[in-house]
Order: sequence, then structure tokens, then C-alpha cells
Amino acid sequence: MIVASLMPEVLIILGSKSDLPVGKRAMEIFDAFGVEAEMMVASAHRTPKRVDDIVTCSDARVFIAVAGLAAALPGAVASATVRPVIGVPVSGKLNLDSILSIVQMPPGVPVGTVGLDRGENAALLALQILATSDEGLAIKLREHREEMARNVVADSFEVN
Amino acid sequence: MIVASLMPEVLIILGSKSDLPVGKRAMEIFDAFGVEAEMMVASAHRTPKRVDDIVTCSDARVFIAVAGLAAALPGAVASATVRPVIGVPVSGKLNLDSILSIVQMPPGVPVGTVGLDRGENAALLALQILATSDEGLAIKLREHREEMARNVVADSFEVN
Amino acid sequence: MIVASLMPEVLIILGSKSDLPVGKRAMEIFDAFGVEAEMMVASAHRTPKRVDDIVTCSDARVFIAVAGLAAALPGAVASATVRPVIGVPVSGKLNLDSILSIVQMPPGVPVGTVGLDRGENAALLALQILATSDEGLAIKLREHREEMARNVVADSFEVN
Amino acid sequence: MIVASLMPEVLIILGSKSDLPVGKRAMEIFDAFGVEAEMMVASAHRTPKRVDDIVTCSDARVFIAVAGLAAALPGAVASATVRPVIGVPVSGKLNLDSILSIVQMPPGVPVGTVGLDRGENAALLALQILATSDEGLAIKLREHREEMARNVVADSFEVN
Amino acid sequence: MIVASLMPEVLIILGSKSDLPVGKRAMEIFDAFGVEAEMMVASAHRTPKRVDDIVTCSDARVFIAVAGLAAALPGAVASATVRPVIGVPVSGKLNLDSILSIVQMPPGVPVGTVGLDRGENAALLALQILATSDEGLAIKLREHREEMARNVVADSFEVN
Amino acid sequence: MIVASLMPEVLIILGSKSDLPVGKRAMEIFDAFGVEAEMMVASAHRTPKRVDDIVTCSDARVFIAVAGLAAALPGAVASATVRPVIGVPVSGKLNLDSILSIVQMPPGVPVGTVGLDRGENAALLALQILATSDEGLAIKLREHREEMARNVVADSFEVN
Amino acid sequence: MIVASLMPEVLIILGSKSDLPVGKRAMEIFDAFGVEAEMMVASAHRTPKRVDDIVTCSDARVFIAVAGLAAALPGAVASATVRPVIGVPVSGKLNLDSILSIVQMPPGVPVGTVGLDRGENAALLALQILATSDEGLAIKLREHREEMARNVVADSFEVN
Amino acid sequence: MIVASLMPEVLIILGSKSDLPVGKRAMEIFDAFGVEAEMMVASAHRTPKRVDDIVTCSDARVFIAVAGLAAALPGAVASATVRPVIGVPVSGKLNLDSILSIVQMPPGVPVGTVGLDRGENAALLALQILATSDEGLAIKLREHREEMARNVVADSFEVN
Repeated sequence: MIVASLMPEVLIILGSKSDLPVGKRAMEIFDAFGVEAEMMVASAHRTPKRVDDIVTCSDARVFIAVAGLAAALPGAVASATVRPVIGVPVSGKLNLDSILSIVQMPPGVPVGTVGLDRGENAALLALQILATSDEGLAIKLREHREEMARNVVADSFEVN
Repeated sequence: MIVASLMPEVLIILGSKSDLPVGKRAMEIFDAFGVEAEMMVASAHRTPKRVDDIVTCSDARVFIAVAGLAAALPGAVASATVRPVIGVPVSGKLNLDSILSIVQMPPGVPVGTVGLDRGENAALLALQILATSDEGLAIKLREHREEMARNVVADSFEVN
Repeated sequence: MIVASLMPEVLIILGSKSDLPVGKRAMEIFDAFGVEAEMMVASAHRTPKRVDDIVTCSDARVFIAVAGLAAALPGAVASATVRPVIGVPVSGKLNLDSILSIVQMPPGVPVGTVGLDRGENAALLALQILATSDEGLAIKLREHREEMARNVVADSFEVN
Repeated sequence: MIVASLMPEVLIILGSKSDLPVGKRAMEIFDAFGVEAEMMVASAHRTPKRVDDIVTCSDARVFIAVAGLAAALPGAVASATVRPVIGVPVSGKLNLDSILSIVQMPPGVPVGTVGLDRGENAALLALQILATSDEGLAIKLREHREEMARNVVADSFEVN
Repeated sequence: MIVASLMPEVLIILGSKSDLPVGKRAMEIFDAFGVEAEMMVASAHRTPKRVDDIVTCSDARVFIAVAGLAAALPGAVASATVRPVIGVPVSGKLNLDSILSIVQMPPGVPVGTVGLDRGENAALLALQILATSDEGLAIKLREHREEMARNVVADSFEVN
Repeated sequence: MIVASLMPEVLIILGSKSDLPVGKRAMEIFDAFGVEAEMMVASAHRTPKRVDDIVTCSDARVFIAVAGLAAALPGAVASATVRPVIGVPVSGKLNLDSILSIVQMPPGVPVGTVGLDRGENAALLALQILATSDEGLAIKLREHREEMARNVVADSFEVN
Repeated sequence: MIVASLMPEVLIILGSKSDLPVGKRAMEIFDAFGVEAEMMVASAHRTPKRVDDIVTCSDARVFIAVAGLAAALPGAVASATVRPVIGVPVSGKLNLDSILSIVQMPPGVPVGTVGLDRGENAALLALQILATSDEGLAIKLREHREEMARNVVADSFEVN
Repeated sequence: MIVASLMPEVLIILGSKSDLPVGKRAMEIFDAFGVEAEMMVASAHRTPKRVDDIVTCSDARVFIAVAGLAAALPGAVASATVRPVIGVPVSGKLNLDSILSIVQMPPGVPVGTVGLDRGENAALLALQILATSDEGLAIKLREHREEMARNVVADSFEVN
């Protein structure tokens, strides 16, 4: 029922198709760094078994779970694996709902939460995790930091 | 692995043993009304399969799920059954975390949320649900309302 | 003064005509499941007696009350009946006002609260309540869950 | 069923006996100013008809309603009279619940809300309202302001 | 320096010209009830002496103060008079700022706070205060309530 | 009516005697740095003229205003002077009330707000302001920073 | 790497180019008062060394730091200097994030926080600080206050 | 100036000695799993260079930063390394301040945030990160999950 071979390093799970813009920001980072990532939709509340199956069958070394409202997906993914799970709260009418329902995980099952709609930061954190055993990737991450720093200096010239 | 025969009308699931005081307030209501209820501990994050097994195997007609922090339990129960699920947020350092992570369920999988630590109200709502097809129970609920009203009048004499 | 015969299984009461979009989402669910529901406007603050009359005279087995701001309507309905009452907070400038004034009911008079503007979930919870004594309806609800699950899988194909 | 003659200028209604400390602070102010006030317990949710009967039968010129949680009482009092209603939110685990469910009244039925647990301010506002047609009371209120000002100066000497 | 004769029953003070839409909703109510009201702009922070002069010189029996952000105006008006002061928080980027800085007045100097942007409710509360010594006005207020109730019934027909 | 000669460099005004612990933390900093400071109590709501008189008559070069709840004092001080005003919100049942009613000042009349109960930081900021024209004081502030840094290193040894 | 000579009295640092509108409101005030100010972009998180270098090398007597989200910039500037630092939280999806991460500085390193997006108030506070040793500037600030007051009176005529 | 050899796999940095109880919960997890970790105190605001030196010199593969209030430490650590950084917000008078100032990091510099005071979850997430390249550790983590699950079942027996 579920796609058999999941070979990417990182698996991004969206709680709903409406979370796609946030997921895309993550995918763009993975593309830029040349790291294999895959994106799927699976809802903790509408398809709990699918979430469990996807996570259990996946060979991904890091998971990113993107969800809004009462955002149970990151915790559901975390409960199904001992791989690191990064949670991305999605903005809506309240915003505190998705942030708190991801970050306030109980003892024993952590989720590393990034900021509201911060798909790009979830991807960068995933890359940092992979880079703990991949010095080539670590070098690319340092270069990316330097590029960001150069952009800040360039921006500074523009504001004057 | 899980107790085989679950015959109670209502099953109360606590996310953690620390939620017991809230669960007890519900049990006291069920005892007072003579309705069979059972209480178990099952964590959405530490024992997701246990939650699914308990709910799937249970013959209960109503579920009550009690949890604090990023309170995924009520939603996890709701995703495993089409029986009505009542969620009880448990108080902690933030309080808004448990309320919002229970009440803000996405479309398709509802949880009827009661107030912070309101185990007694969860039980009364469960009884009201059972009473939609049990007029004897409805009569008892009306008598309980009348008794509460009399207590308010008695309280009023005391404050003067 | 009030329409005499209220035969629907579920009565939806809107606190104001402006809550109609939320109410309509509930009606669409009832229509899809072939369950009789009726929708009325009655304000806890502008027409308290009307709320009491409507609830007292109604034969509905479940009530849904939709309101924003200091949303007293769900509690007012709940105080007038021992039928289960589902409260739907409506979004506005604050959002926490309607959520907290519905979910934080005092002991003795429960309201099962669903998420902000979640008329469809109120309807599904009402159907789940009715299905505790109607196995045919329970089967339809399970089919609806399965359909939602299939849609998630279909959405997953689209995001790749 | 309810005490027949209600002759006080101000009627204080507590939503629950537990709100008594807040009510007492109001009573102390009325005693100090020699204005007749009476205090009763009546719950918007457990005794809605009692609230309506008390308010409808009362000759009070100002009402004070004290309540916590989903504090529907001030709004329920306001919907039953065109006399001015002052609402006092009572503190609890959230605090924003009682404040917002009193202050955010919809258009048409106002409640003048004072601060959390501020029974004394509710009483002073009631006296100010009565003083709009009682110059003797206005003079006393001005003297009270002057006394408060003198106390501030005295406090200032103590902190050095 | 300030207009000498202030004869209206109610004086509306706006903290800023940008609060005019909220003030206008109050003026429309006063016009409809044939009660004299006047509206001025005076800022607690930019023109503190002007606020004091206006309030001290005014013969108004009720004051309405409308302000957003750190809304000190209602409290500043209240500190300059023992007439009843009604505060109206104005919406902005936070909303909780204006609500809390008006409603949370310290002991001794009350402000009766109405809901966010609720100019019309401030006017109705002012009328209710004036009506404590004007039975003709009280009758008009009751008629207004009845008209609102009729409108709710009319709205109810429309939603079906 | 008010003490004639106010010669200190910094004047600390407490909104209430209960704010004394926060004021004392500021005084301890001024004592340690050998800068003259004076502390008084004056309430924006109970003694508005006193606040104005104190500020207008004072030769202080910096003002610190300490207040809780609907904390109008810092803004009232700021509206009476073009000297820099530092506001200190005092903790209570809500905390957001004092923070937001100090920090959210409207355009034109700034208050530099420090953290909840942070009397010591208000004093340090006042010293930094005085040090913009007093290099000796700037040197002492740099030494204080170095001492704090040494304490952090010392603390680090203790935690191992 | 960084512009060598920084001679302005005030240095405005933006955490990101997107904070430019807030910075411009500050620059307009400095232009109007004829005080030299410079604006740069430097991110506490993307260019921490640049922030340190800019602050350490600058001869500015007051710093203004403008940032949104987890706004670490004002604190980073404050940790690098004993000059007064004014922090300006920038609005976004939450607003409380930038306010609290600027105002809640720990003991020892103060930041004087102004309101959300209040670049103009940051500039005015900086001018007030400079005016503690520049009476000519103090006179201009008093004239600015008087002009604001006149504008309020003019606005008052318009609302009638 | 700083201890020369930092050989642990994980470096825990506390923003203040008062954060020690949260740090100890992390250390207990590392001890139980036999992973080398070290704990230091370094404040982003009082010792920014020390934070930078510690992080730059460290060979740790994962960093944990623990801080309360305006919690800049995790972001400061993250800006100095491309190793994964886990932030732990510490509880205080507000709680939302530390959570939001850690989780709401701007694009480009991620921090993986865990729940309030959740030192144990920070440690477990660090172990999960290390286990992405250490299957032996992954096995231990799975055993730990199984033990937690058994404890839940044992707790369930106790509540009956």
C-alpha cells in the first residue's frame, strides 16, 4: 500500500497537503546541498497507521514532520523511531497551538522544534545532523554560513 | 499483553500516572451514577501501539482521554475509533499547551474537549452521551442538576 | 412564539447570523450522512429566554452551539438540557476569547468543545454520539474515515 | 423560592461560594460608605433560572457579578436587566479565561469589567454610578480619593 | 485654552484621531437615544494636562475613554474624576495590550471596561448608568433590547 | 507639599509601596556605583498631580518608574519630562499586563522598558545613560561587566 | 572589512534588511533633529562577529537595535558595550516573540525596549539620552512635545 | 583562559548556574547511556566571547544550550558552529519568553528546541543524533523506549 523503497537520507512528512509551501522550502535546501530527501503526506489523525508504516519502513536517517493546529504528527513520528525528528509548526489562526503542541513533548520522546513555518531551518538542522558523520557536508554548511554573512554585508550597503 | 475483556461502558485512558487525580474525579462520577467505567494508563508517545490496541479492542461506547503538555493522547484515541472521545487537558506550567493541543484538532477527527483538569465534567458528558439512548440515565442526570441547583441556594444562605 | 415542532436529531444554534459559515459546514456533514439537523439563531445575551425555550422544547438528541467573543451560548444551552452539547468557538480578533469562554466550563455542566470554526468536526462528533446507539451510522462514519485516509494517500502523490 | 424583598441599592451575585473573598472586598467598601448592598450566590450554568429570577425581581440600581473560569454570570445578569452590570473576573489557573469571557461581550449587552479579583473596584464603580444622582455620595467618593492620596504620601516617607 | 462650556451628559475622549471609528459607533447610539454627547481628542501621553483640564471642567455625568496600545487614557480620566469612566480598548497588532492596560486598574480607581472596539457597548453602558435616575431612558433601553431580540428571530428565519 | 530639593542624579518612583523590593534592587546598584539616587512613592492613578509635580520639580537626569498591573506610571512620568524614563514592570497574577502597558507606548513619548521585576537592570541602564557624558562612570560599568564575566567562569567550575 | 570611521552619535543596527521600514522611522526623527545617525545591517545569528566588531569600533554614544522573531540582536549589542542600547521589536506572525526576547534580558545587561515597530520612539529615547548632556537638544525635544500637543488639539476639532 | 581539552561527545552549556537542575537531568541520561558529556556555564549576554571560544574550541559533535528569560544562548551557540544545537527553555515567571526566544530562530541558523525544562529530552535527542552513525547507540535507545513502554503498562496496573 505504501511505496516500498524509501532510500532518501531525510524523509519529510506533511500533515496535510496545505503544508506544502513549508515543505518546499525544506526541499529547496536539500536540493541545493545535493542531499536526497523525499516528501510525503501522512496525517497523524486521519492516517495513523500510515504514519507508523512510513516511519518504520523508511531508511531515512532524519525525519522532518510539518504540521499545524493540534500538531500531533511530529510526536507520532518520534514515537515510531529513534531517529532524530525535527518538528515544524505551521502558522494559522492561533500559531501558539502548533508551536506548543510540538515543542512541549513529554519526557522520553523528544522532538527538535524549529520556528513557525521554518521549513528551511528544519532542512538545515537535518543537514547538520547528517554532517556529524560527514565532514564534506559540514564544509558545505560552513560555506553556506559564510555566504549568508556576505549577504548581510551586502544588505547593509543597500540600506544607506 | 493487554487485558482481554474490556466490558465497561466508558474507558478512561490516562497519558501518565501523574494524571490520576483528574481520572479519579471522573471515576467518582461514574460510581455515583452506577455506570461501569475502567481506567488505564497508555501514552500516545511512549506506547502508541498500546493506545491503538486498547481502543480497537475495547467495547466501550465512550472514551475519555486525559493528558497534559503536548497532549496527543485524545487525538490518538479519536483517530482509532468512531466512538465519541472526550479530551481532558491537564494543568502544568503553561496550561495553554494541553488545552490547545487537544481542542484544535484538524477537520475530520473530532475530540470534545472539556476544561482544564475537569475530570468530573468529562464523566458527566460521557453520561449525557450514554443517556441519549438511556432515559433512566437521563432522569438521573436531571436529578443531579437539581441537586446542584439546591446546593447553590444553600451556599447563598451561607454567604450572608 | 417559537416554531412548535422540532424533530431533527441535532439542533444547531448560532449565536449570531455572522456565524452562518461555520454552521453551514456542520449542515453539509449532516446532509452527507442523511441525518436530520436544523439550524437556528438565538443569542445567549440578546435572547436568553429564546435559547431556553428552544432547547427545552426541542426533541433533538444532540445540540451544537456556535459562538464567538465572550461565547456564553454553548454554556447556556448546556445549562438548559442534559443532552450532550458541542460548542464551536468562532474566530475573531482574539480567538482565545471564544475558545476559553467555551472550554473552561465550571464543574457540573460540561460542554464538549471542538476547534476554532470547526463546524464540520462538531457535526462529526454529533454523529459519533448518535452512532453509539445506531450501528448503521457507525458504519458510515468508519467509511468516511477510510475515505479521508484514501484522500491523504492521493494528496501524497500530488506533492511529489 | 427566592427571598422576596430585595431592597439594597446594589446586588452582588457570586457565581460560586468560592468567589466569596472577592465579594467580601466589595461588601467592605459598601459598609464603609453606608450604602446598602446584598450578596447572593447564583450560578449562570447550574441555576440559570435563579439568576434570571433574582435579577428580574431585584430593585437594585446596580448589579455586580463575580465569576471565574468561563465566566458567563456577568453576561447572564446583563441580559436580564438594563441596569448597569459590573463584572469581576476571578483568578484561577489561566486568568485570561475569566477576563476575556467577561470583557468581550458582543454588541448590545454591555458589562463594565474591572480587574482580576478587584471586588473593591467593582464596589467603587457601583458607588460612582449611584453618585451620578447623589451629590452626597460624590462628596464621600472625593474624600476617599483624597485619603488614598494622603496614604501614598505617607507610604513615600516609609520607603526612604 | 479648552472649550469652556461642556454641557453634554456624556463626554467621549479619544486617545488619538485614529480611534474615531470606535467613537462614532458610540455617537450613533447617543444620537439614536436622543442623549447629548460630545467627542474630543486628548492623549494621556502627549497632552496629560489637557486630559485633566477637560475632565475637571466637564459637567458630564459619564465619561467614555477610547484608546489602543498602552492605553493609559481611561485610567487617566478615572484618576481625575469620581464620575463613572468606561474604557474601550482599541484593536491593533497585539490586542491584549489595550485590553489589559485598561481592565487591570489597581485598587481605588476603577474603570468599567467593555470589549475590543466596542464603542456601541460603551454608549449603551453609559445610557444604563444615566437611566439609574431616568426611568424614561430605562424604558427606551428596554425597547432597544426587545428590538434586538426581534432581529435575532428575523435572522433565524434567514439562515434556513 | 512635596519635598523641595531633589538633587539626586536618578529619581526612582514606585507606583505603590508593594513595589519596594524591586526599587531596592535598583538602589543597591546606585549605592555600589556611588551615584546619588532617591526613591519615592507616587501613583499615576491615585496621585496623578503628585507624579507631575515630582517629575516637573526634579533635577534628576534619569527617571525610573516601577509599577505593576495596568502600569500607567512610567508613561505618566514620560509625558511630564523629556528626560529618559526607564519603566520596570512588576510581576503579579498575569505579568503580561504590566509588561505590555509599559512597553507598548504610543508614538512620541518613549519609555525604555526593562524585564519583569528587573530593578537592577533599570539602575544599570540609568548608569549607562549618565555615563554617556561621564567617562569615569563608563569605566566602572566596564569593570562591573568584567566582574560579572569572572563570576560566570567561577560558576562554571562549581557545576562540574 | 567594516567601514572604518563611525562618527555618528547614534548607530542603528537592523537584524535584517526587512526591518528597514522601522529603521527609517528612526532616521527621519534624527534628520528632523539634526543629529547624526547611521544605519547598518548586522545579524546576531548570521554575523555575530560583525555585530561585535561594529559595536566595539563605533564611537556612537547610543545604539538602537531593531529585530524580529527570536530577537537576539539588541542583547548581543548590549553585551558588547556599556553604551545605552535601545531595542525595537519588529512585528510578525506572533509579536510576543520579539517583544519578550528583547525586554526579558537577564540581570546585568539591560536593554531599554520600546513598543512593537516603534522606530520613532527609539530615536526619541536616544535623543533624550543625548539631551541629558545637551541642553540645546533638550529644548528641541520640549518644542517637539508642544507641537505634538498642538496637533492633538487640532485633531480634536476635526472629529466634531 | 578556557579549559583546553574538550573531548566529550556532547557539550552542555548553561546560561546561568540557576539552570543546573535542568542540566543535571541531561547529564543523568548521558551517564545512563555511557556517553561522554561535559557541562559548563557561559552566558550569551555576560560572556559572549566565552560562548564563542567554548563552542569554537570544542570537539563536541552536539551542543545543548539551556537558558531562561530572553534566552539568547542557544542561538549564540548555533551561530558559532554548524554542529546541531539543541535548545532547552527554562521555566520562570512567564515561560513563553524562553520558549519563543529559542524556537523562533530566523532563517539560516536553526536550533532544535525541546520542551520547558526538558533536560532529559535534550539529552535523548543528542543521543539520537549521535546514533545516526552509531548503531550500538541506536539499539540502546530502542531498549530505552521498550523500558519506558513497560513502565507505562506497570503504571496502568497501579491505577486500578
